[in-house]
Amino acid sequence: MFVVMAVGATDEEVNGVKSHILAEGLTPHDNRGAERVVIAVVGEVGPRKELLMSRLAALPGVETVTPISRPFKLTSREFHPEDTVIRVLDAVIGDGTLTIIAGPCSVESRDQLLETAEAVAAAGATVIRGGAFKPRTSPYTFQGLGVEGLRYLAEARERTGLPVITEVMEPAQVEVVADYADILQVGARNMQNYPLLTAVGRAGRPVMLKRGFASTVEEWLMAAEYIVSSGNPNVLLCERGIRTFETYTRNTLDLTAVPLLHHLTHLPVVVDPSHATGKRWLVKPMALAGVAAGAQGVMVEVHPRPDSALSDGDQSLTFDQFRTLAAALRTIHDEFGDLQGDPVPAAALGLTAGLSKH
Amino acid sequence: MFVVMAVGATDEEVNGVKSHILAEGLTPHDNRGAERVVIAVVGEVGPRKELLMSRLAALPGVETVTPISRPFKLTSREFHPEDTVIRVLDAVIGDGTLTIIAGPCSVESRDQLLETAEAVAAAGATVIRGGAFKPRTSPYTFQGLGVEGLRYLAEARERTGLPVITEVMEPAQVEVVADYADILQVGARNMQNYPLLTAVGRAGRPVMLKRGFASTVEEWLMAAEYIVSSGNPNVLLCERGIRTFETYTRNTLDLTAVPLLHHLTHLPVVVDPSHATGKRWLVKPMALAGVAAGAQGVMVEVHPRPDSALSDGDQSLTFDQFRTLAAALRTIHDEFGDLQGDPVPAAALGLTAGLSKH
Amino acid sequence: MFVVMAVGATDEEVNGVKSHILAEGLTPHDNRGAERVVIAVVGEVGPRKELLMSRLAALPGVETVTPISRPFKLTSREFHPEDTVIRVLDAVIGDGTLTIIAGPCSVESRDQLLETAEAVAAAGATVIRGGAFKPRTSPYTFQGLGVEGLRYLAEARERTGLPVITEVMEPAQVEVVADYADILQVGARNMQNYPLLTAVGRAGRPVMLKRGFASTVEEWLMAAEYIVSSGNPNVLLCERGIRTFETYTRNTLDLTAVPLLHHLTHLPVVVDPSHATGKRWLVKPMALAGVAAGAQGVMVEVHPRPDSALSDGDQSLTFDQFRTLAAALRTIHDEFGDLQGDPVPAAALGLTAGLSKH
Amino acid sequence: MFVVMAVGATDEEVNGVKSHILAEGLTPHDNRGAERVVIAVVGEVGPRKELLMSRLAALPGVETVTPISRPFKLTSREFHPEDTVIRVLDAVIGDGTLTIIAGPCSVESRDQLLETAEAVAAAGATVIRGGAFKPRTSPYTFQGLGVEGLRYLAEARERTGLPVITEVMEPAQVEVVADYADILQVGARNMQNYPLLTAVGRAGRPVMLKRGFASTVEEWLMAAEYIVSSGNPNVLLCERGIRTFETYTRNTLDLTAVPLLHHLTHLPVVVDPSHATGKRWLVKPMALAGVAAGAQGVMVEVHPRPDSALSDGDQSLTFDQFRTLAAALRTIHDEFGDLQGDPVPAAALGLTAGLSKH
Repeated sequence: MFVVMAVGATDEEVNGVKSHILAEGLTPHDNRGAERVVIAVVGEVGPRKELLMSRLAALPGVETVTPISRPFKLTSREFHPEDTVIRVLDAVIGDGTLTIIAGPCSVESRDQLLETAEAVAAAGATVIRGGAFKPRTSPYTFQGLGVEGLRYLAEARERTGLPVITEVMEPAQVEVVADYADILQVGARNMQNYPLLTAVGRAGRPVMLKRGFASTVEEWLMAAEYIVSSGNPNVLLCERGIRTFETYTRNTLDLTAVPLLHHLTHLPVVVDPSHATGKRWLVKPMALAGVAAGAQGVMVEVHPRPDSALSDGDQSLTFDQFRTLAAALRTIHDEFGDLQGDPVPAAALGLTAGLSKH
Repeated sequence: MFVVMAVGATDEEVNGVKSHILAEGLTPHDNRGAERVVIAVVGEVGPRKELLMSRLAALPGVETVTPISRPFKLTSREFHPEDTVIRVLDAVIGDGTLTIIAGPCSVESRDQLLETAEAVAAAGATVIRGGAFKPRTSPYTFQGLGVEGLRYLAEARERTGLPVITEVMEPAQVEVVADYADILQVGARNMQNYPLLTAVGRAGRPVMLKRGFASTVEEWLMAAEYIVSSGNPNVLLCERGIRTFETYTRNTLDLTAVPLLHHLTHLPVVVDPSHATGKRWLVKPMALAGVAAGAQGVMVEVHPRPDSALSDGDQSLTFDQFRTLAAALRTIHDEFGDLQGDPVPAAALGLTAGLSKH
Repeated sequence: MFVVMAVGATDEEVNGVKSHILAEGLTPHDNRGAERVVIAVVGEVGPRKELLMSRLAALPGVETVTPISRPFKLTSREFHPEDTVIRVLDAVIGDGTLTIIAGPCSVESRDQLLETAEAVAAAGATVIRGGAFKPRTSPYTFQGLGVEGLRYLAEARERTGLPVITEVMEPAQVEVVADYADILQVGARNMQNYPLLTAVGRAGRPVMLKRGFASTVEEWLMAAEYIVSSGNPNVLLCERGIRTFETYTRNTLDLTAVPLLHHLTHLPVVVDPSHATGKRWLVKPMALAGVAAGAQGVMVEVHPRPDSALSDGDQSLTFDQFRTLAAALRTIHDEFGDLQGDPVPAAALGLTAGLSKH
Repeated sequence: MFVVMAVGATDEEVNGVKSHILAEGLTPHDNRGAERVVIAVVGEVGPRKELLMSRLAALPGVETVTPISRPFKLTSREFHPEDTVIRVLDAVIGDGTLTIIAGPCSVESRDQLLETAEAVAAAGATVIRGGAFKPRTSPYTFQGLGVEGLRYLAEARERTGLPVITEVMEPAQVEVVADYADILQVGARNMQNYPLLTAVGRAGRPVMLKRGFASTVEEWLMAAEYIVSSGNPNVLLCERGIRTFETYTRNTLDLTAVPLLHHLTHLPVVVDPSHATGKRWLVKPMALAGVAAGAQGVMVEVHPRPDSALSDGDQSLTFDQFRTLAAALRTIHDEFGDLQGDPVPAAALGLTAGLSKH
């Protein structure tokens, strides 16, 4: 449930409510919005629910207490009506500017990474990507350069001034990856790896959480809830395609998830057309469509020589193709930023109980 | 296989090739492009394939004979490199202009249809839609007004000057529907209703073929092949979402199908975000994304009073919402038409055998 | 809603209730069970629901009136607690005996069909199958022998004494197919072809309704509802696999649908492992599993020389393989009939409103 | 590729081949079958493939060298034609006897676990299950008793003499779980958690690998390949349902995977109808169907009082229900063990290159 404090409620009143929640063996999380404070109550409430609601409603400074049927709390729009904005180095994600994350699928060598990083930075990328630890379907294929790859990523940051993002695959890797990278990526296969989600929730770095390829939007937000409830509010979501019966493309990019998430959550969303389609020539139209659907940005794979890439060459853009794409993305974003979405329906902006359950 | 005639081949030479094909018990279909004639050979070739290819290659006027591994022939880009353009009354579909098909899910009454038709025409619709025969999951719900609905559609055409489209559900209905409507719609549930596909293939009216909600792109093109090989080249494809595990939306709009189809076929494609999402507030972002992905247009449901609609009210736009959408679509289409797709990859424009198999 | 008559209610009382329902513009369907009569009320009830329920409850002979939230009525276990038993020639389907439907995918010639029919009859088949009108993905492949094939099927019936089943693809074919065949098959692609469902509902022949490959169990029962509400109670369901992401097999056989249907409906169910798996060597284990899950029978494809079959040869059994399978099926069915399912949960046997919503 | 040694090849010859493989920078794995030794060559071979094959073929004692197109090597039937048999305490899995794994979803208390363990042991269970570390979709629900739960499991083993199985969720937990449990379970959400697969591959305990709910059979075997190639040959597969569009059941149990796996791999397979269906009354028919399809056993959830279970109560059997199920399973297994599968097709038993493509 959410406790909505009155406009002008004092810190003392807010603390009073939080103490009461703690005394019930539950955990309060507060969001201090521009106008008012909202306190989420998390934990298993069970049959005492009605009693607890009426007790909380009677405390000083409380305006209303709202039961919430959604399973995600801290990631919901109701709790946190304002968009989450993530700041990392000079990059800002989620504030209405366009985020372009680009780089190779895998860091293959120092030269390959630095050459790519400089090319994409020059063309307008705002974050550099590159895999150092690679989750591969087969144990017999290239598994990434590991810490050596992380060092090259740090060097790419120094050269370009842009933040770098890379995947972390297990809790024990979080510390070393966080030493080198600015944003931690949790891959699609690990979306429900709860120990990893908890670990990145405590790592003090923004996290990009990719959607599991067979996960519903609700499960995805529940995974984000693990990170946020572990203390890390800076979560970026990445739609990368879901598994369907259609086999012409690698996966099916679910762009409807973009406006749907904008409705359900305050977290920013980017789209990854490279992994979703698996085909270079489908990346540009789907990246443009993603921005038209309201995504805050895109992530694309770029390689100096895609045909000799150690992983995912078929879906990697050349430098030239990336430059053309980045320019097109800026055009559509600049001129059509206002067109894309209607304001979020009123129901989602307030703290109404009537939000349709799924 | 395809027989590619030399530039400047005479009619006599073309006819010679066609006669030879007929003599083999097979059927020739020729496409007379701007530069040259291509003749598709359809029928079961079996083991005589190599012999037949060498015989055809030796005929006068033949440049090359190309084996084609794709199961769709007449609908393929290789056979017909130029985009198909459909002309119906004053509307033109597939020539780079924006097609907007709009109207109610069901024709419920004369007033409801005419009021809607005039409103959407004024706001920029180019085709009027409305269901007279409705495929409904339950035998106990409203099944449409039938021929009475067709009459109102014809009246809507007279009022607005726009062509009208409506669904036909069985072969025996084709004649009466073709008497009243300008474009015949084959619905998603009937995408593999082969007697119906053959019947609309002979009806002398353009056909809009919706994708089956669990059909691959290849199966969809095979269904179009039934229509085209029955003698009707004017087929418009409509992506309306596929069935996946995600249940937040009615279906999952597969926008990647848009550039994929642009690659595989010469037939135009529109996107139906109303049925795909099932939610009014998702229609606009997904319509814009569809155009950004390269669709030649959209189909949306509009109703004077969505809350009292007899079918699909939740996904119908009000007149105001439609006006806003149509304006946004025109903006993104006008300024952005050139950005959306790269030219189709060279491989798809020529008659190469190397096209990736599915 | 369902009107449950008291034990011993008179015909006059039953007719009184039915007249009242008709007077409301709704349609009564009555099921005369061993103990009592249940009357289903179908049609759009809308807001008068509560008033109507209390009026019906007050009529003489009525015990209770139960609202039903399920969309399927006449096909539901609540309306018709006893299993439906279909009798056709000497075959009985759904009474606890084992049904084995066998024969070639397509009728290819008189010899091929008769040879197969005699072989499968000798080995224990109870119904002969064979396709005369074939729904094929491609317009360029073998489309069946048509009426000629129907004649051979009738001849196979004469030779073996067994009923024959064949697919009907459009309303206009129903009459001719019903002239020759004993059971009409509606194929997976036509599961939601409503004009066809209505037509076979009026044909006076038992119907086997295959599950659409992307249809939920509820949609499947709604399709059966079209047939039953058109006047035909003799519907046999056939699970033939659903479309999933797994591509090793043609489809994914959903055997859980078998006990689920036993719970939801009184209609019998058979399993088709040939189409579901697409691989001959998977037919036997999946047929046995189907019977173990509680299916009333199986349908399998058998061909004298599978390697030269005109359709679906990869999944057809040889005569020897069929004999082995039929013997194994009889063993598992005979010794094991009692193990397979618990009695249907009490909730499903009575007319409780508390049946879980889907 | 696989190197097939001649019957009677000496150890020296086998070692000579292995040394040659190592000298190429690749890894040899040998399987010493009843008749002959097969050596799998793993690692990235690339363009030297043909040269390498001819060099290996020329070595003393080599009969043939077979290229293998499947991505899984050590888990394939071709490499290891004999069934893998896992021995743990007195239990034997995969030798044709029936494996029944039973116990509560979560270990909730010492009493709950011991009571259940004794009841299922008395009724014929061969392995005791119980979750100590629970992967839960929500961070706010019961996450398991952790090490305390492990201690109760060890106590259950002492009481019953049966091995215990429990889930391990991250590499750092492997050691402690292996201290208490006899079999380590990798859950569906972690099927592609590669660091975890590698860690359990080194743990010296048998591993049960559940299928990811959106993973193909091939991806599943690739995950098993991670474990086996890390040094652990004792892998048991568990089919637990895949995600489809059908929502009546929790997932769709893919029983066809059972005979398919028997064809593709030597690893044993059990079926989990509790998680697949999510409904207690569907467990029995699907467990029976699983054994009829050829599964080596089943895993089911049992709880003293399902209605008050902290997790998955809806799908847990009561003690009585379990006793009935276990007896039925023994009957079907004892009398029908021979019926279920044909011998694996010859192609799969030899080392032919012609194995069906995926």
